[in-house]
Amino acid sequence: MKVLAIGSHPDDIEIGCGGSLIKHRKSGDDVLAIVLTGGGRGGDHIDGSLSATRCLEAHTAGKIMDIEVECWDYQDTEIPETYELVQRIEKLVEAYKPDRVYIPYGQDTHQDHRVTSNVAKSACRKVKQILEYEEPSSYNSFNATYWIDITSHIEQKLEAIKAHTSQGHKQILKIKSIEGLNLYRGYQSHVEYAEGFATFRFLEA
Amino acid sequence: MKVLAIGSHPDDIEIGCGGSLIKHRKSGDDVLAIVLTGGGRGGDHIDGSLSATRCLEAHTAGKIMDIEVECWDYQDTEIPETYELVQRIEKLVEAYKPDRVYIPYGQDTHQDHRVTSNVAKSACRKVKQILEYEEPSSYNSFNATYWIDITSHIEQKLEAIKAHTSQGHKQILKIKSIEGLNLYRGYQSHVEYAEGFATFRFLEA
Amino acid sequence: MKVLAIGSHPDDIEIGCGGSLIKHRKSGDDVLAIVLTGGGRGGDHIDGSLSATRCLEAHTAGKIMDIEVECWDYQDTEIPETYELVQRIEKLVEAYKPDRVYIPYGQDTHQDHRVTSNVAKSACRKVKQILEYEEPSSYNSFNATYWIDITSHIEQKLEAIKAHTSQGHKQILKIKSIEGLNLYRGYQSHVEYAEGFATFRFLEA
Amino acid sequence: MKVLAIGSHPDDIEIGCGGSLIKHRKSGDDVLAIVLTGGGRGGDHIDGSLSATRCLEAHTAGKIMDIEVECWDYQDTEIPETYELVQRIEKLVEAYKPDRVYIPYGQDTHQDHRVTSNVAKSACRKVKQILEYEEPSSYNSFNATYWIDITSHIEQKLEAIKAHTSQGHKQILKIKSIEGLNLYRGYQSHVEYAEGFATFRFLEA
Amino acid sequence: MKVLAIGSHPDDIEIGCGGSLIKHRKSGDDVLAIVLTGGGRGGDHIDGSLSATRCLEAHTAGKIMDIEVECWDYQDTEIPETYELVQRIEKLVEAYKPDRVYIPYGQDTHQDHRVTSNVAKSACRKVKQILEYEEPSSYNSFNATYWIDITSHIEQKLEAIKAHTSQGHKQILKIKSIEGLNLYRGYQSHVEYAEGFATFRFLEA
Amino acid sequence: MKVLAIGSHPDDIEIGCGGSLIKHRKSGDDVLAIVLTGGGRGGDHIDGSLSATRCLEAHTAGKIMDIEVECWDYQDTEIPETYELVQRIEKLVEAYKPDRVYIPYGQDTHQDHRVTSNVAKSACRKVKQILEYEEPSSYNSFNATYWIDITSHIEQKLEAIKAHTSQGHKQILKIKSIEGLNLYRGYQSHVEYAEGFATFRFLEA
Repeated sequence: MKVLAIGSHPDDIEIGCGGSLIKHRKSGDDVLAIVLTGGGRGGDHIDGSLSATRCLEAHTAGKIMDIEVECWDYQDTEIPETYELVQRIEKLVEAYKPDRVYIPYGQDTHQDHRVTSNVAKSACRKVKQILEYEEPSSYNSFNATYWIDITSHIEQKLEAIKAHTSQGHKQILKIKSIEGLNLYRGYQSHVEYAEGFATFRFLEA
Repeated sequence: MKVLAIGSHPDDIEIGCGGSLIKHRKSGDDVLAIVLTGGGRGGDHIDGSLSATRCLEAHTAGKIMDIEVECWDYQDTEIPETYELVQRIEKLVEAYKPDRVYIPYGQDTHQDHRVTSNVAKSACRKVKQILEYEEPSSYNSFNATYWIDITSHIEQKLEAIKAHTSQGHKQILKIKSIEGLNLYRGYQSHVEYAEGFATFRFLEA
Repeated sequence: MKVLAIGSHPDDIEIGCGGSLIKHRKSGDDVLAIVLTGGGRGGDHIDGSLSATRCLEAHTAGKIMDIEVECWDYQDTEIPETYELVQRIEKLVEAYKPDRVYIPYGQDTHQDHRVTSNVAKSACRKVKQILEYEEPSSYNSFNATYWIDITSHIEQKLEAIKAHTSQGHKQILKIKSIEGLNLYRGYQSHVEYAEGFATFRFLEA
Repeated sequence: MKVLAIGSHPDDIEIGCGGSLIKHRKSGDDVLAIVLTGGGRGGDHIDGSLSATRCLEAHTAGKIMDIEVECWDYQDTEIPETYELVQRIEKLVEAYKPDRVYIPYGQDTHQDHRVTSNVAKSACRKVKQILEYEEPSSYNSFNATYWIDITSHIEQKLEAIKAHTSQGHKQILKIKSIEGLNLYRGYQSHVEYAEGFATFRFLEA
Repeated sequence: MKVLAIGSHPDDIEIGCGGSLIKHRKSGDDVLAIVLTGGGRGGDHIDGSLSATRCLEAHTAGKIMDIEVECWDYQDTEIPETYELVQRIEKLVEAYKPDRVYIPYGQDTHQDHRVTSNVAKSACRKVKQILEYEEPSSYNSFNATYWIDITSHIEQKLEAIKAHTSQGHKQILKIKSIEGLNLYRGYQSHVEYAEGFATFRFLEA
Repeated sequence: MKVLAIGSHPDDIEIGCGGSLIKHRKSGDDVLAIVLTGGGRGGDHIDGSLSATRCLEAHTAGKIMDIEVECWDYQDTEIPETYELVQRIEKLVEAYKPDRVYIPYGQDTHQDHRVTSNVAKSACRKVKQILEYEEPSSYNSFNATYWIDITSHIEQKLEAIKAHTSQGHKQILKIKSIEGLNLYRGYQSHVEYAEGFATFRFLEA
């Protein structure tokens, strides 16, 4: 199986579907993660060199998860909803031929997450499986219908999030809260830890 | 894989997920279909002996699909939203241990379909995969997120619907319209014929 | 009655509301169709001259449906969500004074369909009747609440879609699936063939 | 045109669609209103004879609107979601053959309104036009998509609501608020006074 | 401030809004919790004496939270959607005059939770503040719009859940998952621990 | 308490939450209103100097409501969904530190209202209370869950709307309809006049 994950900023993918990606790798699946921006505005701070630092962290996290990570060069907070971006993802999809794509949930407080979700849906219109992952900034209309048991991979997932050391103090609370969410999603689905997804499209061939 | 399908009346299951059930059988899965009523009011007409006739037709259709069919004895149009029914399904689920359950979509003009969907959700709360199938009486809020390619099984599915001969003239239009819907769902998912489902819960273990 | 239909690309209007437009003409209504782009990227292929070809096909289809067609000059896949476009449609609306407008459904995988729907809603804010038509790329949240019986016009509708010969092989499956959808919408509304719409606004004067 | 309106209690119909019913009569349409209970609990008070009084008021209001009113004998606050009631409405529908039915909105704080809406949808599954009317107790998910201009009929509508004199003091505020809502719905639809409806089903034959 | 919490079974209230109730008490508010059934079927097991045991546990939990608890006598899994129950709650509301009511979320896999939510909404139609709390069995359409910071009360909340010792082994996972959810809701709202609610109605007087 | 209100055009804020802002002032709260454009296109007319006139009217209305008003310089109908605007609001929020923000409802026929709502949600992601106000152009999916009693402030609110004299004749109907809506929202919430809001986020600290 070939899996593609698309995120707006470093650490979005780890938070939303990191455990599932690790699980894919353990099962022998190919996994490619695309991060559209270097996250140079870090949500709160703006720093010219931050983008490069965060990309390195994304690669470190990728190593922990044993997945390939590619950082694209869009500007943090300004990901453009354009044909150019749709087409760039489309070309990647045509070359890589993923069976499943993980994308951000489309309703989100953060404009980058909304745009990333929209362009990915346009570009991946022929991909068989599209799952939207959940983030703290997702609107609460997020409706989990697909769960992936990550009980055996939660430690590794949290390690991957911790690799984003530039996020500093904020990360500690974030990590605890993500572990908490995965426990809750686990309980809902009768396992210990799970990640929840909105099923955008799933074709059983 | 063990599969359970639950329907309110004879032919509901064939219409909503017949192609998928045939596909399961072709892949070697076990399939059990439970029909809660004999359909003795046939939607439009009321006839004491109709219920027995329609149950026979359900079994004939079951043979065509190569699946086991069980008719329960609730009254057409009066399926009760009670603990007794929840518990009866629960016991079946505990004994049969299905991996996947197909149930009617919860928002539907027909009261029996609404009740069947509700009690099934209560009774199957520990089943890993629950998919809601679509029927012509479903409210149009039905939101297909899961598609199953039934291109190789459409003929057999239509045969199974035709086995419900007591439904007479009405069936011809119905069969054409269901084939039409499956063509459309197929086109949406880039295959020839497909059945569409709302993903109520899917746990990837 | 004066009717306006707005589409993103050649053949969108035929697919979504072609039967209804033919019906309007048969009843003596005026019908004007606006196609915002020449469809020069055809969804899959990009070809400089394709846009001109497809516009001709749109006019041929228009003749089959006996309606007036106008191709505007926006770029396929890049319809802009701008005041300029809102205002251009607004001026047309002020001059043509339609009683009813058909527009694409607002939630759609294709970015052009989303933008077309949004700008049309802004520009037509004083039109009494706005119906959103359904396309294979519509999100499945599409909720049909308005049906138009097109039983007598289905053949002519399919002919109009066939006029888009540049779409080649893909068209055959598409045509079958649209006929299938119209059969299903017909069955739901107790006629043979119907088109389904989401009622965005309907004022009964 | 033949029109049927169904309400749970005396004055529900006047509030939700009284203006539209008056308009239908002025256009020469037949109008029949069915009130399922006598409203003997009046929302707040319980009084054995109240039901008879309120039925008389419903008939007085009917005279003001020039429509026929029938009071059925279900118990206020206990309208049963049963096949018996579905069938009773179904028989009326088969005999009266309405082209349009007005029913309460299905999501409502009042259990009677929810049940009335559900059974009416089941019983009227072959009626071409079903519009759900809005009441102060409707959940705020009510989504008006269909407006009827009642500018010429607002005075008569308010008179009809006033005929429910047993509702006493409470009525004064209620009448002002309903007039207010109709003004707002009018403004939204570019007329002076309008009633808003959720389009449950509309088939344009 | 006077606060009322309504739950279907022992421990539902602790899970959904226990932290908020403790906080109310610390601020000097009155808090009354009504548990409609003794939970005699415990979800999975059926045992005649279980109901009495669980009621005692509910009172123990109540002491931990410093709130008053009342167990009503409805049958676990068979809470009736009747006027009798609506009226019983209504009388309590008239006597106790709560400013705020906490109720289960209306869309839930468990039939008791659905019914409890519905009857409470009917009975509390004049209460100024109604918040729906979230439970693991809530449908994932649950949309948190109201958060209460319970950082200082999380330990006490977990103690209260632990008081339900008859729930045994299952409780350990449940408690961890609820703590996890409250951490996540906290992170979403920029505090450490929070409970999330759907705002059904909030009137700022 | 510090309150911020954000609107696209002069008079949007008065219409959607004017009564609530007056109430805040009467309770001693600080209130700041930001109007993103001068409304130079007035919805229907375009006039170079209109923008300046309408800004003056906004200040006059501000004096009537006793609140501070600031007009920003974006172009009517062309408010940009950009990082620049998000950041400009963010800076204001960091400096002013509002406890509550009122913003337009996110689903609206007017593109400016949609954009204003989106950018405000991004910029105010750390504000504790965000309420979306309702306008005649809001989509009817608007779901009021939060009501503010403005019975004592309705006269002053209507005076503030009347201050927009450049809107001329149109205003008379608009004012009557807004008063009507507030009466209806009042009736729904058991007071005389109320404004209704969608609760986007409310954190009870």
